[in-house]
Amino acid sequence: GLTAAVRATGLPAVLKTRRLGYDGKGQRVLRSEEDLDEAWEALGDRALVLEAFVPFERELSIVGVRGADGDTAFYPLVENVHERGVLVRTEAPAPGLTPALQAAAEHHAGAIMASLDYVGVLALELFQVGDRLLANEVAPRVHNSGHWSQDGAVTCQFENHVRAVAGLPLGSTAAVGHTVMVNLLGDLPPLDAVLREPLAHLHLYDKAPRPGRKIGHVNVQGADRDAVLAAAARIEAALPATAGPV
Amino acid sequence: GLTAAVRATGLPAVLKTRRLGYDGKGQRVLRSEEDLDEAWEALGDRALVLEAFVPFERELSIVGVRGADGDTAFYPLVENVHERGVLVRTEAPAPGLTPALQAAAEHHAGAIMASLDYVGVLALELFQVGDRLLANEVAPRVHNSGHWSQDGAVTCQFENHVRAVAGLPLGSTAAVGHTVMVNLLGDLPPLDAVLREPLAHLHLYDKAPRPGRKIGHVNVQGADRDAVLAAAARIEAALPATAGPV
Repeated sequence: GLTAAVRATGLPAVLKTRRLGYDGKGQRVLRSEEDLDEAWEALGDRALVLEAFVPFERELSIVGVRGADGDTAFYPLVENVHERGVLVRTEAPAPGLTPALQAAAEHHAGAIMASLDYVGVLALELFQVGDRLLANEVAPRVHNSGHWSQDGAVTCQFENHVRAVAGLPLGSTAAVGHTVMVNLLGDLPPLDAVLREPLAHLHLYDKAPRPGRKIGHVNVQGADRDAVLAAAARIEAALPATAGPV
Repeated sequence: GLTAAVRATGLPAVLKTRRLGYDGKGQRVLRSEEDLDEAWEALGDRALVLEAFVPFERELSIVGVRGADGDTAFYPLVENVHERGVLVRTEAPAPGLTPALQAAAEHHAGAIMASLDYVGVLALELFQVGDRLLANEVAPRVHNSGHWSQDGAVTCQFENHVRAVAGLPLGSTAAVGHTVMVNLLGDLPPLDAVLREPLAHLHLYDKAPRPGRKIGHVNVQGADRDAVLAAAARIEAALPATAGPV
């Protein structure tokens, strides 16, 4: 059972449901032998996957799009910050992004799309360990870590998804300046604090507030990275303290 | 009657219906005395306005927004090209725009908004004659000559209108690079010709094609004006020959 599996992966490890997990839901981090019973109790009535815990330096993701004619395009790698399994912030392009790292990520994502004969937008979440990229998750759809493209790329991921499935030419995936995407989780900040920032673009989902729920995001976009980071920090400081992941 | 009025304005002159005219509809240009009877026949059952024809150098417009708190913001002056009374192309900012011209246009538009205690977006169409600006038309709403802002300004005219009427802070009206807006009139060009252009952003209105009808527009936006103009020219070359104003 679980004990034997943990012997194979070592600890820490992550126990996940095989289906319908997202945003940290349907998973438990096993740090010591004492965590096994509780995790099994919580998840053990379903098919599960046990993964060795990867000590990564940072989380990246790449959003790609493949047209009906097999043409592909890739947005730049972005850096993601998760808190308790939920994406809270994306920076695009990822700081310190090198052409080699971008090429490696495009190679992986392109291979996945080609092997599936995939049409549309697909996101590949990656762990960076040194100059290695380890795949964490594949999302065959538009992705939260691609929302920055609405205000920070020539063509956003949503338009490129529509272009792909409609058999139209793909749009440019080039980034324009620097963008930080801040998720609005649980409850909204005072809207004035966002709308007063000239670099901020507010996106609301018309969803009722609920602890931990994604109800919107803000894209902070500009030519000057320091100004973008400073504005994003002001917006993050205005987020309700209790609204984060639960 | 009309003959006496034409004696006051001189010829050429423009005869317009007092209500519901737009896009060249409800007006006749009177170039010689022979045009009077036909124009009166066509329009004379309504209240009319006769205007002296202004020999202008170019047509400009400015879009402004005034918030519920009286705060105002103005987009840069843009240059408009009309064909047979219908806007076919806007360039933003207007080529050769000087701070003095921008200040004069903001002064006029701001005075109109203040005197009406106006809240929302308003467009002022102007004729440039030397360094003078003559008001042609006021549109108390979002305006076709402001559509470029969807892809060429930090905050577009639609969002700023909503911000204004909702009592929220106004967004930045700064232009980003250069934008040419090309109206799609009557019928669509081959969509590939637009979508293949990396600088082009296609906007469709989901309206049935009909001769002369505005059914969409394309914003060509980029940092390099020459590249923008070249792409816009390629798109204009792809427009259906018969689809223009009628």
